[in-house]
Amino acid sequence: MLGYFGPAGTFTHQALLSVTDEEAIPFATVAQALDAVRGGEVTAAMVPIENSVEGGVSATLDILAAGKRLMISQEVLLPVQFNLYARPGTKLGDVKRVITHPHSAAQTRHWMIDNLPAVTVTEGGSNAAAAQEVADPASKYDAAICGEVAGKLYGLEPVASEIADNSSAVTRFVLVCLPTEPPHRTGADKTTLVAYMHADHSGALLEILDQFASRGVNLTRIESRPTKTGLGNYCFSIDAEGHLRDPRLAETLEGLHRICAEVVFLGSYPRADGVRPEIARGFTDEDYAASRAWYAGLLHP
Amino acid sequence: MLGYFGPAGTFTHQALLSVTDEEAIPFATVAQALDAVRGGEVTAAMVPIENSVEGGVSATLDILAAGKRLMISQEVLLPVQFNLYARPGTKLGDVKRVITHPHSAAQTRHWMIDNLPAVTVTEGGSNAAAAQEVADPASKYDAAICGEVAGKLYGLEPVASEIADNSSAVTRFVLVCLPTEPPHRTGADKTTLVAYMHADHSGALLEILDQFASRGVNLTRIESRPTKTGLGNYCFSIDAEGHLRDPRLAETLEGLHRICAEVVFLGSYPRADGVRPEIARGFTDEDYAASRAWYAGLLHP
Amino acid sequence: MLGYFGPAGTFTHQALLSVTDEEAIPFATVAQALDAVRGGEVTAAMVPIENSVEGGVSATLDILAAGKRLMISQEVLLPVQFNLYARPGTKLGDVKRVITHPHSAAQTRHWMIDNLPAVTVTEGGSNAAAAQEVADPASKYDAAICGEVAGKLYGLEPVASEIADNSSAVTRFVLVCLPTEPPHRTGADKTTLVAYMHADHSGALLEILDQFASRGVNLTRIESRPTKTGLGNYCFSIDAEGHLRDPRLAETLEGLHRICAEVVFLGSYPRADGVRPEIARGFTDEDYAASRAWYAGLLHP
Amino acid sequence: MLGYFGPAGTFTHQALLSVTDEEAIPFATVAQALDAVRGGEVTAAMVPIENSVEGGVSATLDILAAGKRLMISQEVLLPVQFNLYARPGTKLGDVKRVITHPHSAAQTRHWMIDNLPAVTVTEGGSNAAAAQEVADPASKYDAAICGEVAGKLYGLEPVASEIADNSSAVTRFVLVCLPTEPPHRTGADKTTLVAYMHADHSGALLEILDQFASRGVNLTRIESRPTKTGLGNYCFSIDAEGHLRDPRLAETLEGLHRICAEVVFLGSYPRADGVRPEIARGFTDEDYAASRAWYAGLLHP
Repeated sequence: MLGYFGPAGTFTHQALLSVTDEEAIPFATVAQALDAVRGGEVTAAMVPIENSVEGGVSATLDILAAGKRLMISQEVLLPVQFNLYARPGTKLGDVKRVITHPHSAAQTRHWMIDNLPAVTVTEGGSNAAAAQEVADPASKYDAAICGEVAGKLYGLEPVASEIADNSSAVTRFVLVCLPTEPPHRTGADKTTLVAYMHADHSGALLEILDQFASRGVNLTRIESRPTKTGLGNYCFSIDAEGHLRDPRLAETLEGLHRICAEVVFLGSYPRADGVRPEIARGFTDEDYAASRAWYAGLLHP
Repeated sequence: MLGYFGPAGTFTHQALLSVTDEEAIPFATVAQALDAVRGGEVTAAMVPIENSVEGGVSATLDILAAGKRLMISQEVLLPVQFNLYARPGTKLGDVKRVITHPHSAAQTRHWMIDNLPAVTVTEGGSNAAAAQEVADPASKYDAAICGEVAGKLYGLEPVASEIADNSSAVTRFVLVCLPTEPPHRTGADKTTLVAYMHADHSGALLEILDQFASRGVNLTRIESRPTKTGLGNYCFSIDAEGHLRDPRLAETLEGLHRICAEVVFLGSYPRADGVRPEIARGFTDEDYAASRAWYAGLLHP
Repeated sequence: MLGYFGPAGTFTHQALLSVTDEEAIPFATVAQALDAVRGGEVTAAMVPIENSVEGGVSATLDILAAGKRLMISQEVLLPVQFNLYARPGTKLGDVKRVITHPHSAAQTRHWMIDNLPAVTVTEGGSNAAAAQEVADPASKYDAAICGEVAGKLYGLEPVASEIADNSSAVTRFVLVCLPTEPPHRTGADKTTLVAYMHADHSGALLEILDQFASRGVNLTRIESRPTKTGLGNYCFSIDAEGHLRDPRLAETLEGLHRICAEVVFLGSYPRADGVRPEIARGFTDEDYAASRAWYAGLLHP
Repeated sequence: MLGYFGPAGTFTHQALLSVTDEEAIPFATVAQALDAVRGGEVTAAMVPIENSVEGGVSATLDILAAGKRLMISQEVLLPVQFNLYARPGTKLGDVKRVITHPHSAAQTRHWMIDNLPAVTVTEGGSNAAAAQEVADPASKYDAAICGEVAGKLYGLEPVASEIADNSSAVTRFVLVCLPTEPPHRTGADKTTLVAYMHADHSGALLEILDQFASRGVNLTRIESRPTKTGLGNYCFSIDAEGHLRDPRLAETLEGLHRICAEVVFLGSYPRADGVRPEIARGFTDEDYAASRAWYAGLLHP
């Protein structure tokens, strides 16, 4: 049994359906979905992790980093597209009150101002909940901004399509399970971790980044995150190119472990976009093998 | 006239009231509040920017960075405290269904599991909206998790107090206006900016951070942010210790301007916590003055 | 009156003659030549500073760095070429004993082994002194390895020519005077300085180099030098591309002054090889001017 | 059979006698001594390598780095002390002409100016050769500046003692052999190497130093050295704290091998001064072992 951040019809649900048809149950919050993994109720759960239109992203990072250890085994990217869904029979001119999630509101703001300037937008807990609300004939809302899965699920019909201001937006989701042997290297992998500094000193971040740079490892995301003990005490949530089994990343992880107060490894998994890293001169697997052979020769000339 | 991310009764409203009693109007989204500043409808707006329990944080960073230039003139820190508010007469044992904002749900999760394990928590658009919902006698919800301002505003009464899992949590808000001469140096200032890289190369972040480190400027927050042209192309949203008029920060800003594709300066303003930076040897104002006098002497011995 | 590291006939003498026909006197040591500048006996002195075949290089660096301040106003590069000079009438087959300076011996070693394997090479104080010795008909030496100026000066004749193992070797000389306004920028300039660390800590050199790198200034020479208070306490003797009046170098010098215990500026002068630096994106004069204009605009929008 | 940079009586000879009474033969130049090791004529040779009063230091570095590989197996530090030696019966007031090596002249310059201002100092090839010259009753020189071994060897007597300007000066010598298994770790070791850059680009030195810094390895000496293909193309001659078998140095050497065009390892050997490195948090052997155990646990949770 799998889990996902629900309700049914969200983009997260759609992300899960894109990789499996295994049975799955929705959870009301990211925290509940991940707790279900930790508790063994589900074997894995799909949750949004980056640039989501459905919220829960900061929450995901923080819940992943704290508590019983979890592991990301897969990522999914979904193009984010919004339609304006209403009850069958509604015309665009009839729409006076719209409900949607705050992030969806943000991402369709310019379209709404340009096309429906007089309409009031109210923010709700999720797009799917908005669609469900609108599906109720007694609802005070005329339409919901949501994706296709949610609109169809609740029997709504689109009165306007592809209304996102930025048509190339995507959201990133991850499938989270209990720690196990990471999936095999594909050559186009990503590694996610959280690095806790020893103290809030000027150079800590520079030293952490230097552990990556001095081994030729590129980052694709970094965020300072509060450590929950007051503003100003930070850890760093990081996505790096490469796999735990890449020699350059192996050495980097060991280096981080030495200079950080704590490192939480959250998984190595194939990149959904399949992009292979450009590895600078000196940092390929062959370069690592050659350097180790050379060193061995110094010990016993 | 001022604005704020509403509705009335949110923590943002409370943050605004803590610094002024000037007349103010709520906006439904952070975007609308900041657009009102850009358009001149209000002279300034209070919005959440970090670790907020009310959402909108990522949105705030992105909306500040894009479009017509804005400036932060003041920051406010609020301790975040939640109570469980219900209609008068309700007892704790009567509570079956609770509504609140997703972040508030996340921050009271352990208390709820420990004390009200059977209760269902639904996520809504804001704490104040949740309180308003519960205030309706016809509501299907029995209680709202929200702050004192919202609870009182809608005539509710607390059935449980101080239920946040982390009692030291604070949220940071900023007052945003159109660009003007920044407030005076206080010696305990913060500067916010967004730095856009030239390209997604391995060393870009390290080079950016080095511009700070080589002048002795500490950071208090950093986040890579997508540049809205697809995942993987990032800029960096940064808070640094110090004021635009500090010589070390002046030189750092100029240095960033040279190595970055673009730098968006978002303001220098007094730190709400009044913490003065520990300035390492060599980076005080006096050190800067001495180094310039020495250099001048080399030109004309 | 000028001075030079003599005796007459050395490569240093030749370097001086290549740039002026002003009257000049030789000094027996680099120290004496530079003391004569410090004392005002001569207005400037030519001394070897890098990769010299005549010794005195370390001495030059150390004497320049300590004591009353001096300034390099010009550099000269000389291709180093050696001939084997003997008294008139001597044939190559007659040569059994050769005298020369240790560095000249080192630079002709392979030629001597290949061509005169049975000959004994004795090391003397300078090439010119060696030529002078050989010119004495009573000398126990048959030939001297020296340059053309010395050979001719003492009436010797070449019995073998161009015997340097590395025919592209050059030596660098500098003309040293009392501090004055440095010569004008040419766009192909070099700056020489000595940076004293605050303490022998792991990161000191990295911090010093970072002051250059973060402003886009390249180095052409660096050496750790003992500070004369025991092995293990070091300063750094550095040649950097650029001129004191280049904005990137001006800022670098000020930066060094702040983080170092002491910086001794030894001059900005045209490069003898006329090579102009490749200035990376962001570090041109125009980039500096643009960054300052941008900063000024932030103060008064 | 051992060798040393002679003649007999030099400080180098004295350095060799301080560590062995094995039979040894002098060589006229550092190059000849090291060639004798390369050719198998001697099993090891003692040569000066740093801050020598007898010259040959740059030569030593360059000859070690080029040609058939050699290895340093031991270092010796000698306090450098000079006396003024003359033929028996000579009084200080009789001394008019003095001969010595240029470096010895440099290191006694102030004493000579203060005590024997009218005396002429001539520079010769070595201190021992100067002593030998003075020992000849027909010599035009009255005294030699040299050490005790040389003075006694040639039957001279001191007319002034301890005349070095800096009484704490020391010289460093190394015993050089063919590559073999390096001596055991003592916990107070030094490693010498030469790192060749890929190209003369701005950041090469910084990248090389970063390989050390990111693993917590301190340097005790660094010099850019011309690569013999023209001024401006450099390699770096480096002494680092630690032993080839220290995990932090092992990883550093491998890292250098990857980013450099070539690395010449010249030996790991006990420090003559017995100083143990201060190892920063995270870089001890135990920290390395712990980081590797942690990494192994990630592969197989």
